[in-house]
Amino acid sequence: MADIIHRVGINAPVGKVFEALSTVKGLSGWWTVNTSGSSKEGDSIFFQFLSAEGTEIGSMVMTVAALVADQKVVWKCTSGPEEWIGTDLTFNLHREGDCTIVIFGHRNWKEPVEFMAHCSMKWAIFMLSLKALVETGTGRPSPHDIKIDNWN
Amino acid sequence: MADIIHRVGINAPVGKVFEALSTVKGLSGWWTVNTSGSSKEGDSIFFQFLSAEGTEIGSMVMTVAALVADQKVVWKCTSGPEEWIGTDLTFNLHREGDCTIVIFGHRNWKEPVEFMAHCSMKWAIFMLSLKALVETGTGRPSPHDIKIDNWN
Repeated sequence: MADIIHRVGINAPVGKVFEALSTVKGLSGWWTVNTSGSSKEGDSIFFQFLSAEGTEIGSMVMTVAALVADQKVVWKCTSGPEEWIGTDLTFNLHREGDCTIVIFGHRNWKEPVEFMAHCSMKWAIFMLSLKALVETGTGRPSPHDIKIDNWN
Repeated sequence: MADIIHRVGINAPVGKVFEALSTVKGLSGWWTVNTSGSSKEGDSIFFQFLSAEGTEIGSMVMTVAALVADQKVVWKCTSGPEEWIGTDLTFNLHREGDCTIVIFGHRNWKEPVEFMAHCSMKWAIFMLSLKALVETGTGRPSPHDIKIDNWN
């Protein structure tokens, strides 16, 4: 098994960060504008990624496995790219000084494949987008995300 | 053991990317301006990170374990943060279409600690800096790097 983990600090109250991670509106502001479904525990959220021209480049379904206000969000990927199915996504929050720290994990990849290395870079890009959304009100969700290689 | 891996695509000839990874001048253009030593195989490169105010926030020594022109650069960390000592850093290059693909790895961490999650984000920031340096002539080496949390 292989894991992606990232740490980012956001200059905002923990409640604002939790809101961006636990509501469809929040998620559509930093990950992909095409977010739908229900973000309650046990429910599923649907994420779709489109190219600038509007063709689908990927989609996935996340089942909300745990939701603890101002502390953590846990998803299980139940549909999407083959390598993602069965992986766990976690956002753990804690405070340090004036900062809300997010420890992000995308864990339990079967193999550390090149696609995982791509996703690791993209998750870093989206963590910057999350930080920008919460701190400034404007994120860079797909399709406005920074492109990092020939895959996306 | 735990690994960080990132994939980035650079719109430039492989030789230009290799130069940025295998010379002191190149490295000082995207990782830290305070780079010195010798980047030949078997030699050591010294990296120092300063705050905007000029105080040291970190330093490390990398021994160049392998250097294959236009293909790969491998370092062993021989001095630096405790968690880094003995870890391996690799930059593997290949071409895809008009793009030079870099597969970066910082492998063999003893534990996937919070500091590793911080470094994973920072490496992504520096991969963007490498891409910018090679594509535009201007990177964002430390101390001009994007800050991502309360640690750096």
